[in-house]
Amino acid sequence: MATQKPSIPKGTRDFSPEEMVKRNYIFDTIKSVFKRYGYQPIETPAMENLSTLMGKYGEEGDKLLFKVLNSGDFLEKADDAHLKGKDSLKLTNTISEKGLRYDLTVPFARYVVQHRNEISFPFKRYQVQPVWRADKPQKGRYREFYQCDVDVIGSDSIFNEFELLQIVDDVFNKLNTNVLIKLNNRKILSGIAEIIGQAEKIVDITVAIDKLDKIGIEKVNAELLEKGLPKEAVQKIQPIILLAGTNSEKLEKLKKLLQNSETGLKGINELEQLFGYLSVAKIHSEVELDLSLARGLNYYTGAIIEVKSKDASIGSICGGGRYDDLTGIFGMPGVSGVGISFGADRIYDVLDQLNIFPKQELDTTKVLFINLGSDEQQFCLPIVSILRKFGINTEIYPESDKMKKQMAYADKRSIPFVVIIGTNEMNSGKAMVKNMKSGDQNEVIINELSSFLSQ
Amino acid sequence: MATQKPSIPKGTRDFSPEEMVKRNYIFDTIKSVFKRYGYQPIETPAMENLSTLMGKYGEEGDKLLFKVLNSGDFLEKADDAHLKGKDSLKLTNTISEKGLRYDLTVPFARYVVQHRNEISFPFKRYQVQPVWRADKPQKGRYREFYQCDVDVIGSDSIFNEFELLQIVDDVFNKLNTNVLIKLNNRKILSGIAEIIGQAEKIVDITVAIDKLDKIGIEKVNAELLEKGLPKEAVQKIQPIILLAGTNSEKLEKLKKLLQNSETGLKGINELEQLFGYLSVAKIHSEVELDLSLARGLNYYTGAIIEVKSKDASIGSICGGGRYDDLTGIFGMPGVSGVGISFGADRIYDVLDQLNIFPKQELDTTKVLFINLGSDEQQFCLPIVSILRKFGINTEIYPESDKMKKQMAYADKRSIPFVVIIGTNEMNSGKAMVKNMKSGDQNEVIINELSSFLSQ
Repeated sequence: MATQKPSIPKGTRDFSPEEMVKRNYIFDTIKSVFKRYGYQPIETPAMENLSTLMGKYGEEGDKLLFKVLNSGDFLEKADDAHLKGKDSLKLTNTISEKGLRYDLTVPFARYVVQHRNEISFPFKRYQVQPVWRADKPQKGRYREFYQCDVDVIGSDSIFNEFELLQIVDDVFNKLNTNVLIKLNNRKILSGIAEIIGQAEKIVDITVAIDKLDKIGIEKVNAELLEKGLPKEAVQKIQPIILLAGTNSEKLEKLKKLLQNSETGLKGINELEQLFGYLSVAKIHSEVELDLSLARGLNYYTGAIIEVKSKDASIGSICGGGRYDDLTGIFGMPGVSGVGISFGADRIYDVLDQLNIFPKQELDTTKVLFINLGSDEQQFCLPIVSILRKFGINTEIYPESDKMKKQMAYADKRSIPFVVIIGTNEMNSGKAMVKNMKSGDQNEVIINELSSFLSQ
Repeated sequence: MATQKPSIPKGTRDFSPEEMVKRNYIFDTIKSVFKRYGYQPIETPAMENLSTLMGKYGEEGDKLLFKVLNSGDFLEKADDAHLKGKDSLKLTNTISEKGLRYDLTVPFARYVVQHRNEISFPFKRYQVQPVWRADKPQKGRYREFYQCDVDVIGSDSIFNEFELLQIVDDVFNKLNTNVLIKLNNRKILSGIAEIIGQAEKIVDITVAIDKLDKIGIEKVNAELLEKGLPKEAVQKIQPIILLAGTNSEKLEKLKKLLQNSETGLKGINELEQLFGYLSVAKIHSEVELDLSLARGLNYYTGAIIEVKSKDASIGSICGGGRYDDLTGIFGMPGVSGVGISFGADRIYDVLDQLNIFPKQELDTTKVLFINLGSDEQQFCLPIVSILRKFGINTEIYPESDKMKKQMAYADKRSIPFVVIIGTNEMNSGKAMVKNMKSGDQNEVIINELSSFLSQ
């Protein structure tokens, strides 16, 4: 067979040991906080039936699904007309039944409905798994990436929203980075659309004002006009989304503005409850009511949450909200849920940019025993076993290569200690221990190696 | 949209919180041992280019690859003749470029070659990720399952084989289950084929004798004859593969039998080195030289390793061997590697069958605070935060539902302690703590809750 130059599909990545240690630090931190709050892990298959996935992410989303070819003679049942017409779209339905999951929310909804009889509600679950999207790859956007989702389903209480903010706060505190938590409520956005007499244009309105951060108020207004909103409606929106002041000042002003919208007032009340919890149990992170926050409206019916780094400019690193009827499509209506998703890849980039990954990586090898020959190696074996029993990650070089090569290996692997035991050391019962950072060498009684290296 | 009855593709599985805790116990145990021996984690993408995967697993394997449809108008470049002829096999090449990984070994080989300049050899890596095979689903065989691979590449030393046996031993000791480690060597099998004058029939021979355990010697002989081996060759093989005695007795007998095969003697020497290490640094598990062990010959060129449970009858739960030229196909010849793969799903079944999963699951929720209303909840919030800071996984019920419902939730979730704080408790500064297993109730001073619950 011809030699191939190895490569991987565009938009996908290999992760080296160094990257894995950093990624695991993020995953482990996030999972440990999830567990601390009583959330439980689940996992779902990488492949879902296309009937589960299609139509849940809009027309654009359907195109971004990776579809898996049916096994065997998949063309057998294909429609001749589709083949002849080279109709990719229609042929897909007959030659592919499965797709790779696009997010963790739809599989979660499917899971809840499928396993409803085994689940105790409210169901607090977390899920950390990769998702796949056939997006155009670009800097920071991949075709395979991890999502870390935490949701509670089966409870209306705003306390759940509060708990999710506590979780956000705990996670980023543990990761030693400052974040700004932005809040909004879909009902307030509906209220705004209502009072300007444009309730049916809610999607256009939110899509436009969602861009305020990026394109500024002039262009938002232009887009609203373009979408067919009357000039005076646009003029009414502007002061609302530009509302200034503290969160409570904004809420007070909103209360007056939305006094004729029942939905709007309900949204305000939900936010007031949330800020009420936050005033009792304070969190470290800054929380800001941002009326331009929309985050795509497909799911959300209540709270909308977005988290940004305060120290690195990198867009949203976490976000979510409440959805009142996600499981309806799978035959289980009226179950309310709220959840957020941590973007592990972007969080990685933030910590990397700020250079705040912890230096001490406990997971990597701490000690390398140099291999000076078969007698020396045999002498070292029980010592190595003891160190491992004491929880010290220990390697012994597999071959009696040149000392220089073995030291270079320790150096390149950033192993902090090297132990050398040759004939002299075997006789004296003392090992030579070299600290690879300082260059210091110490003679250490072999029986005391574990305590010396545990320091 | 019509309501769908939710389901997942056949051969795939959801994992519930209870299953996840058990699975993570296995994964964490395995990974902790890998790290202890200085192996480093890597991850590769779920999708590989089909050019990387095809032809590596035999013709049958190619059929079992899940292939991913190209995005967009995939039929645009399709060959009209293939479409017209409904030639699924040929069409696949033009409409699919990517596939889901079938194992972790080929992606690892691809990784090593692609990243050769960043890697310090010998490269000791582990990888715990799912793989996908379009196999016929049946009991214990899934289309998505996890492999836990540990390999060292770039070292010929038999010490690596020994270290892998130590790892097997450590893992199953930590999992509290007894295993039998079976060893063989491909060079010995080649030697046997050689001395009976059937070197070119090595594959047929090993495929047949590999079945000895399952079908018995008569049927093995019949299969050998059927494959065209002369009767006297079959008669010569029989006593060899039925060799009895201790491992060293078997080796001694083999030495005489294979005295005219250089390859065979080299295999014996490799096994002697391995048993030499095992005599110096003893392991708990029983190790047996089994000349019928072959495990499919595609890769292996030296040691062959297989691990079986001694307490549950469930087939092989771990296996591997040495491969001398795995990276050659990707343009990097002459690099030797040795590795083993733990079958997490089968290990799960063993521990489940034997009922030896640890009872104390530290990862799950330890305490539920009952929610008796908004004042009581607010009173509890700082207490809950303190318990979490002390590392106690704590929940507070999100709504002030009926006490009975909240207790039922704790019960169904197997949460061991419930804390009740109502008006009386708020006034007295003492909480009521109920032990859900014993039914005992205790009044505990609120400031002492963390120490009471840490016990």
